[in-house]
Amino acid sequence: MSSCVFCAIAEGTAPAARVYENDDVVAFLDIRPIARGHTLVVPRTHAPRLEDLDPAHSAAMFRTGQRLARALARSDLAPDGTHLVLNDGRAAFQTVFHSHLHVLPRWRGDRLRVGLGLVRRRPHDPEATAAAIRAGLDRLATEEHS
Amino acid sequence: MSSCVFCAIAEGTAPAARVYENDDVVAFLDIRPIARGHTLVVPRTHAPRLEDLDPAHSAAMFRTGQRLARALARSDLAPDGTHLVLNDGRAAFQTVFHSHLHVLPRWRGDRLRVGLGLVRRRPHDPEATAAAIRAGLDRLATEEHS
Ligand SMILES: [Zn+2]
Ligand SMILES: [Zn+2]
Repeated sequence: MSSCVFCAIAEGTAPAARVYENDDVVAFLDIRPIARGHTLVVPRTHAPRLEDLDPAHSAAMFRTGQRLARALARSDLAPDGTHLVLNDGRAAFQTVFHSHLHVLPRWRGDRLRVGLGLVRRRPHDPEATAAAIRAGLDRLATEEHS
Repeated sequence: MSSCVFCAIAEGTAPAARVYENDDVVAFLDIRPIARGHTLVVPRTHAPRLEDLDPAHSAAMFRTGQRLARALARSDLAPDGTHLVLNDGRAAFQTVFHSHLHVLPRWRGDRLRVGLGLVRRRPHDPEATAAAIRAGLDRLATEEHS
């Protein structure tokens, strides 16, 4: 039995309220939901961080998240909107180190303090910031080709 | 010229601090960033809601988000973590109705009020909730096959 709770759920050795599964992912309700219908999409392959996750598996995870958002809109839960959120790293509130996607339904007036609508700023030196990210992409490409 | 600002940026008729582009997506800095390096990944094809976005394009968008998270970690911005967030619908804080993915770097102690770590609850009737979502998936499959 795996010491990773999400691997154990994927293997069927730990319980979960499952909503969907296919060859690549399993989806089940978060045991500590922020809202009703809060679902996690978990790749079957153990990858602690997004960095470790094969891009094909991450694409499958996201496609399933999109499908669940569409399904939620057709369900009796009938949310008005949905967040798809991946938290990568402790600084981004990742708590289970088996990379996963949150599907979080929203209703008008639900007053959840979640999302990106909170604190907006004027940009700080966007050209230098964009250049720094492009340099990171170049470093990544160099790594991949060495 | 498009009336959609993200289409205009994708077409090159509106300015943006671009960090990456390929055949499927363009990525540029959010003009009202929550944090330095806050980047948007935008499919070239106009789709107002996630519902409208071709799954191949959404997978491309997410793969690019993953790549940008890896690039950020290698950049001089050196974040400790990253959120990938898609806000679908006004109730989920979507403001530009051309579906897009946020890439939001995080640093330990940055105290941004963003993410899913805020309000956790005990689940309310998880079996009924899971059944409602599965029924939504069934309705979606019926739509697709009719
Ligand atoms: Zn695992
Ligand atoms: Zn557009």
